[in-house]
Amino acid sequence: MDVVVPDGGDGRRLSEAWRYCVGTGRLALALRQDYLDSLAVVQAEIGFRYLRGHGLLSDDVGIYREYEWQGSTRVLYNFTYLDQILDSLLGLGIRPFLELGFMPSQLASGEQTVFWWRGNVTPPKDYDRWNDLVRAVLTHCVERYGRDEVVSWPVEVWNEPNLVNFWQGADQAEYFRLYRETARTVKEVDPRFQVGGPAICGGTDHWLTDFLVMCREQGVPVDFLSRHAYSSGPAQPVPFGCYQTVEPPRYLLDQFATGRAHAVACGYPDLPVHITEFNTSYKPVNPVHDTAWNAAYVASVLAEGGDHVDSFSYWTFCDVFEEEDVPTALFHGGFGLLAHRQVPKPTFHLYRFFARLGAEVLHRDEHTLVTRHADGRLAVLAWHRVDDGATETTREVGLSLPAPTGPLFAKHSLVDEEHGNAWQVWRSLGRPRFPTEAQLELITSCARPAVRTEVLTPVEDRAALRFTLGRNQVRLVELHPVHDETGDYPGLDDTRIPGYGDRS
Amino acid sequence: MDVVVPDGGDGRRLSEAWRYCVGTGRLALALRQDYLDSLAVVQAEIGFRYLRGHGLLSDDVGIYREYEWQGSTRVLYNFTYLDQILDSLLGLGIRPFLELGFMPSQLASGEQTVFWWRGNVTPPKDYDRWNDLVRAVLTHCVERYGRDEVVSWPVEVWNEPNLVNFWQGADQAEYFRLYRETARTVKEVDPRFQVGGPAICGGTDHWLTDFLVMCREQGVPVDFLSRHAYSSGPAQPVPFGCYQTVEPPRYLLDQFATGRAHAVACGYPDLPVHITEFNTSYKPVNPVHDTAWNAAYVASVLAEGGDHVDSFSYWTFCDVFEEEDVPTALFHGGFGLLAHRQVPKPTFHLYRFFARLGAEVLHRDEHTLVTRHADGRLAVLAWHRVDDGATETTREVGLSLPAPTGPLFAKHSLVDEEHGNAWQVWRSLGRPRFPTEAQLELITSCARPAVRTEVLTPVEDRAALRFTLGRNQVRLVELHPVHDETGDYPGLDDTRIPGYGDRS
Amino acid sequence: MDVVVPDGGDGRRLSEAWRYCVGTGRLALALRQDYLDSLAVVQAEIGFRYLRGHGLLSDDVGIYREYEWQGSTRVLYNFTYLDQILDSLLGLGIRPFLELGFMPSQLASGEQTVFWWRGNVTPPKDYDRWNDLVRAVLTHCVERYGRDEVVSWPVEVWNEPNLVNFWQGADQAEYFRLYRETARTVKEVDPRFQVGGPAICGGTDHWLTDFLVMCREQGVPVDFLSRHAYSSGPAQPVPFGCYQTVEPPRYLLDQFATGRAHAVACGYPDLPVHITEFNTSYKPVNPVHDTAWNAAYVASVLAEGGDHVDSFSYWTFCDVFEEEDVPTALFHGGFGLLAHRQVPKPTFHLYRFFARLGAEVLHRDEHTLVTRHADGRLAVLAWHRVDDGATETTREVGLSLPAPTGPLFAKHSLVDEEHGNAWQVWRSLGRPRFPTEAQLELITSCARPAVRTEVLTPVEDRAALRFTLGRNQVRLVELHPVHDETGDYPGLDDTRIPGYGDRS
Amino acid sequence: MDVVVPDGGDGRRLSEAWRYCVGTGRLALALRQDYLDSLAVVQAEIGFRYLRGHGLLSDDVGIYREYEWQGSTRVLYNFTYLDQILDSLLGLGIRPFLELGFMPSQLASGEQTVFWWRGNVTPPKDYDRWNDLVRAVLTHCVERYGRDEVVSWPVEVWNEPNLVNFWQGADQAEYFRLYRETARTVKEVDPRFQVGGPAICGGTDHWLTDFLVMCREQGVPVDFLSRHAYSSGPAQPVPFGCYQTVEPPRYLLDQFATGRAHAVACGYPDLPVHITEFNTSYKPVNPVHDTAWNAAYVASVLAEGGDHVDSFSYWTFCDVFEEEDVPTALFHGGFGLLAHRQVPKPTFHLYRFFARLGAEVLHRDEHTLVTRHADGRLAVLAWHRVDDGATETTREVGLSLPAPTGPLFAKHSLVDEEHGNAWQVWRSLGRPRFPTEAQLELITSCARPAVRTEVLTPVEDRAALRFTLGRNQVRLVELHPVHDETGDYPGLDDTRIPGYGDRS
Repeated sequence: MDVVVPDGGDGRRLSEAWRYCVGTGRLALALRQDYLDSLAVVQAEIGFRYLRGHGLLSDDVGIYREYEWQGSTRVLYNFTYLDQILDSLLGLGIRPFLELGFMPSQLASGEQTVFWWRGNVTPPKDYDRWNDLVRAVLTHCVERYGRDEVVSWPVEVWNEPNLVNFWQGADQAEYFRLYRETARTVKEVDPRFQVGGPAICGGTDHWLTDFLVMCREQGVPVDFLSRHAYSSGPAQPVPFGCYQTVEPPRYLLDQFATGRAHAVACGYPDLPVHITEFNTSYKPVNPVHDTAWNAAYVASVLAEGGDHVDSFSYWTFCDVFEEEDVPTALFHGGFGLLAHRQVPKPTFHLYRFFARLGAEVLHRDEHTLVTRHADGRLAVLAWHRVDDGATETTREVGLSLPAPTGPLFAKHSLVDEEHGNAWQVWRSLGRPRFPTEAQLELITSCARPAVRTEVLTPVEDRAALRFTLGRNQVRLVELHPVHDETGDYPGLDDTRIPGYGDRS
Repeated sequence: MDVVVPDGGDGRRLSEAWRYCVGTGRLALALRQDYLDSLAVVQAEIGFRYLRGHGLLSDDVGIYREYEWQGSTRVLYNFTYLDQILDSLLGLGIRPFLELGFMPSQLASGEQTVFWWRGNVTPPKDYDRWNDLVRAVLTHCVERYGRDEVVSWPVEVWNEPNLVNFWQGADQAEYFRLYRETARTVKEVDPRFQVGGPAICGGTDHWLTDFLVMCREQGVPVDFLSRHAYSSGPAQPVPFGCYQTVEPPRYLLDQFATGRAHAVACGYPDLPVHITEFNTSYKPVNPVHDTAWNAAYVASVLAEGGDHVDSFSYWTFCDVFEEEDVPTALFHGGFGLLAHRQVPKPTFHLYRFFARLGAEVLHRDEHTLVTRHADGRLAVLAWHRVDDGATETTREVGLSLPAPTGPLFAKHSLVDEEHGNAWQVWRSLGRPRFPTEAQLELITSCARPAVRTEVLTPVEDRAALRFTLGRNQVRLVELHPVHDETGDYPGLDDTRIPGYGDRS
Repeated sequence: MDVVVPDGGDGRRLSEAWRYCVGTGRLALALRQDYLDSLAVVQAEIGFRYLRGHGLLSDDVGIYREYEWQGSTRVLYNFTYLDQILDSLLGLGIRPFLELGFMPSQLASGEQTVFWWRGNVTPPKDYDRWNDLVRAVLTHCVERYGRDEVVSWPVEVWNEPNLVNFWQGADQAEYFRLYRETARTVKEVDPRFQVGGPAICGGTDHWLTDFLVMCREQGVPVDFLSRHAYSSGPAQPVPFGCYQTVEPPRYLLDQFATGRAHAVACGYPDLPVHITEFNTSYKPVNPVHDTAWNAAYVASVLAEGGDHVDSFSYWTFCDVFEEEDVPTALFHGGFGLLAHRQVPKPTFHLYRFFARLGAEVLHRDEHTLVTRHADGRLAVLAWHRVDDGATETTREVGLSLPAPTGPLFAKHSLVDEEHGNAWQVWRSLGRPRFPTEAQLELITSCARPAVRTEVLTPVEDRAALRFTLGRNQVRLVELHPVHDETGDYPGLDDTRIPGYGDRS
Repeated sequence: MDVVVPDGGDGRRLSEAWRYCVGTGRLALALRQDYLDSLAVVQAEIGFRYLRGHGLLSDDVGIYREYEWQGSTRVLYNFTYLDQILDSLLGLGIRPFLELGFMPSQLASGEQTVFWWRGNVTPPKDYDRWNDLVRAVLTHCVERYGRDEVVSWPVEVWNEPNLVNFWQGADQAEYFRLYRETARTVKEVDPRFQVGGPAICGGTDHWLTDFLVMCREQGVPVDFLSRHAYSSGPAQPVPFGCYQTVEPPRYLLDQFATGRAHAVACGYPDLPVHITEFNTSYKPVNPVHDTAWNAAYVASVLAEGGDHVDSFSYWTFCDVFEEEDVPTALFHGGFGLLAHRQVPKPTFHLYRFFARLGAEVLHRDEHTLVTRHADGRLAVLAWHRVDDGATETTREVGLSLPAPTGPLFAKHSLVDEEHGNAWQVWRSLGRPRFPTEAQLELITSCARPAVRTEVLTPVEDRAALRFTLGRNQVRLVELHPVHDETGDYPGLDDTRIPGYGDRS
């Protein structure tokens, strides 16, 4: 029996939370051409609002420099690269979701670093200088890009301070000091700035409560609550790669939901909640990111995530990324929606499909989402994730859709193990680490979603849309009303065309 | 049983005759943006060597102008537009195959015109002035583009003088005079110019003999013989369109062969023969041009044509064309490989597939062509035309291909009634005469060839390639050797990726 | 003594009338690449709002076609080219100012034509069919581009009906009928459309009164009054060119003023007035259009024109134009701001300079215009036309400008007989009719305005700006406040740079 | 008295040594967009053949990685970034001049580094692994880009090993071992590779002899001798900058000459000599690089350098460079021909002017170079460097040039303290460290060379070209023969154009 999709009109909107923000490798990478070419593709096809990444204040962006002059130590704020980066982002129609960190070497109190690129994760040696730095950065942006523009950029303080890798000793008290100093400085520059934290990863969710209680008791500004969510288990490393188990999407969505729950419990019922990072695996060398299974998995998250949070930011938009060293092959398990050189992964296509959905939701279940555009066109997303051990590798979908009088042209776009799957093509080609130009062209030309077309003939204001979802398939069906102009062609008779004598 | 394809090495080359030249609407249309955008696509994807069209000397290119000054009549040669046109063509990597015609109004002896755009088809009122005009045009080109470049442009005298529509009274004696005067003038400018004629259409093939006899007897230069070939019957008009029967490809190829036969018979055994126009239908409003059937038909011509002639020029590369008035719908039965706005037709894809074949022919039969590139890669073209009344709508193809050790990655690109077929999508959309931007984007996005991939595992230096050709399908199969780098990935085990636990 | 420029604040705005509309060759030319490349340059550098030209309904746009079917005559409205044209215009950010004309051959009552391209200038053979045509065109545009968009396009009925060349017999009664029928039809499609006329040229200004009286008495809609204005005398032809005397700018501005005067006199005091064509010479082969003198002349018109009318439309934006045949040389006296291939003429630079002025007028006199941008920057335009017989070939300009504290960087951009003058370079090169690519590059590279820079040091809130205007010079001076960051460079000492030992 | 320039014909060619190679910041910077945008401009306007920079083997290009697997240490060669870099360079028409260095951390025997970006400058811990690395890199390139292509890339071993900063202890014996091992490995990959050294800087020129003697005595391959040359004295640091004295160009040219002298003395009389780095100052923070004085200085070097060496490579093509940290302002004294964001410096214009000279030298003296193109056009370069203390700030130039019959159009392009000088504009604007988009547009629009035009009228096959060179001016004069077509314009009379009544 087909699922009967109602005719809508009850005002259910597709939340924009899925597109509010996307993650990126450290900000200095935004100086690179491959990165910017990828961002241009992502913005043209998907159109995220904000971009969040680490390393704004790290040495390679080059902002904070102490120097000696006439017997005293002075500070130079150098915005050469920051300007280049922000000019590029804004030029591509995306704004920064500012993450304040990591610590400039010359301002650090210690030498602990994280990642191959050595972000310093120790507290400032001097909070006055830290505050001066924060003030200088925001003020410079305001002067360059205009106050109204810049106050629309959210400000998040640090990254995952509840992990010893990211904040020396995972010292909560020290983080709360950092947050307090920073939040107040930000509000001094302009009280309209939205500032938040604590940007924690999973594992110690009590930080959310601790954080909000601290803010409340000490009168510290807080405009949003942020956390991260991944669903993978411990890393099982192999050289230049790793494997992990992954929990079901529900596990991720439950993590999303904790933010609001804590906010409500702490007396901040309306506090926006941002998932400032999410993905299946938290490792940039796990091949799961490159697969159709990942796309089918994330489909469930995109469809429901907006019920729970104000945004959830896929980590990351492209594979230009160096946390575990320079990537060692075209497909290396990176986080990106796009591999290097703009090769699209299945999850990129999923996001692209989402960007083509309508604003009104007519129906949503575990594997379908039916939407309507303002001009009346329907767009359907369907997906079918096949977990290990599952016996049903395909799924039949039948939908009874509200329809206008007259036929509907349906364009199906498919991504699965056989279609729109650059990783599978690459595997078939023998996993070339460093594909030649010809191989890249071949992979790219095979990585487009497959297209199927059909014409539906509605009966009594209902069109039956039926198809079979293959293994790990994500499918977009776009329906276009047909205005038949055949009557405007006097004498038309296709059967008089050679080769078409038997066509109706 | 699979067809056993030999390993080659006997030096059979794929003739370049199919790509030597392509037709165009009148030359003044080369001032238009849609035209030049289309030509850019065609050159990037196919890469013809020469372009031939009518109207070089017609009023709208504007070359010949008489004026009065100080009591006498003078002539101004105005190359403003000719330069724009030739600059554009050469900039896109295509050269003109010069057709000298039609007659400038001010130089004409009569008022008879052809086409909606009114090309004057009467002899010159003064042959000295005609010769001056020919000399002026060629000399100007030599000065602007360089002598060595310009003498590589073939020069054809007039178009289809054996038809009363194209040459007043189809007066053979007058045409021979025109040819004689022109050929001698051309050779005066530079004896290296290749000059030829008589550019006739079918119906009065004795002109070929008459022409060569005249050249021989009167010592008139002739460097090539040219004619046209179409396989359609009489036009059955409907408003803004027409239908016709079409003879089989053999009929066309037989016409191709007449050129050499006449040349041999007349004692010009080595005279190059150019089919300066060919297509199925000779009408620019016959929908057959828009179909997959047309592509499957032309495939047979492209595969064999080079056996018979030095070139055969598809009439025309795009639908920017006005011989029967301004086109009245996106699909209107125009000659073009591309419809307006660069929408590709099936026959465009056929040509594009041809451009991706290798230079060595390993095998050719009625529905397959197996080629090899210099670097050893095989490329296979297969096609299946289904005529009215045929009972076999599909065809099984099996090929035993010479193969290297190790697997082969095969990329299939398909165009047929269901795939890569803009016209069918347009029909399904209700034949919108003037598609909106959204409809154009939809049609274009559905007009790409479908892609299928597979991996072949050769056995004893032979790979079996098998597939089924659908109705009016044209299929390109490109084979890429796989260099397996899996061994370079220590610890690789895809079954440890979630969702891929059961994969080998 | 310097002219003391006041500090503004009294709300005088620079009228946008100069940029509201620009003229074009017949609309079918908008299919051409040179035309569209030129329009792209003009829009990027100047940014007109509307574009007005002839020939919307002429045969080459191809809209109106009668045909026979099943024994009766029917009409096909063909929007293939109209869509291409309007898609292009709107894509370049300019809208059509619709001029309804000329008459389709098949709808015409006679055979009289105008121009080399033969626009039919006779009344419709059937007013019902004319009204159907008008309705069909507007309705199609509404469907394709949206109602709110299309009703913002002004609709003008016919062109210069007071001339026998443009309207058979200059028959006023017949024009009034055409206007009446058309205006009512337009309003039927949407009452928001702004419809107007009578689009007359000079010579019979009583038509303005006659027209408004007719509208009033017969209750015919009229939303604006339109006329043309040129200041040249009778044409003195030479082959492919002509010379004329030209009256001073005041003569043109007086013509502008007649519109409002007639409207007031007829009881339409608030009726908008559009000068839908103006220029010095009304001939497209008068070399005056190519000169710096023309730019200096038009400067006076641009500066004051907005005092008198709601728009005045320079005829035309580029030399892609064929009213007197195909242009016969790069510079041929065409109307265009740009010559073929985007070679800028002095008058193009004048318009470009105008587009860089601020919105607030601080001062205006006969040869200077001082403006201020919203961000406080001043921009000054100055010009010096040297008429035949004038003794003062240069002019000293001194301005005392309101200034901020601190220095001002002044960038002067100059166009005159020696600078930014493609025509003079072309003359120096021997007037090549058909310049080679190398010559075009040379001309273009010499056609940019010359740039001079200086730093002004204000004294007591006043900066003295002084310069000498050369013969027929148009000069833009843009002033930028200097924020001196020298103090941020510790140790700075330019005298320690080799070669700069003596610099301060 | 004018200098009489002979008519040539004695075969003196302008050496291409000036354009053979150009320097670059470390190769990993070639991943950046600003870098590649700059290289695109440089290649379009100048067209160098090779590009040489440090860091090919450093950690950030990421080629060499050791890892543990199954109990043993293995090496992964990772060409992800190398391919991106080389694809980009070759795509822009420039090839790498390979400098093998610095040492990968994991292959290093010590921890000494050079530069802000920490290039390791210690010998390999294991020469077998070093040789394997060299072999792997070259072999990969051969496989990817083709053997014939890659063997055309020169290979230089290390950089400035005679300096303790660049090679631990400046240990000559250890360098000679490195060279010996490397050169033999390179020749194993393909004997056609050109390998050379010792890439020393000035100060210990005996290394040149020691190196060649070593090669000869030990039978080590050497295909070219390389060294560097700068003419600046000790650095006098200020924060983020420095000043230095600079010796005259002769000092640099004398260093150039040492290479051949040593080669001859050592019995390698035909050994090619490459100056693989040169500039005035060797510091990337010396403002001299940004000045017109630098351009006038380098002009003398470009004009004569080819007399002494096979190439001399300006260090560097753009300011994307981090040896002394992230640049701290738009103009910061960087080596680049282009500042960030493609802002041209005077020395860029000098190189651009050189690229427009003809291949034949008619005359050269200390401040002029007269050349002729193959098509007969003359191009003159003149320059006037004003050193500190000089009394003549301008210089008169008079040349009697061989000339055709008929006038010559002369286009002068000027760069000096007032024209084409972005640095001076930037100073005038108050030295904005981080210019806004508007400031950048302003600087760029003022940074073009000034253009002057004139027409020369030759007398008796001689044209007199006279001009005054301003302070630190570099001037290109391009002469174009005028073919006067005035006679083709019947009725032409410019005095009939309004405003031109008194023109001849």
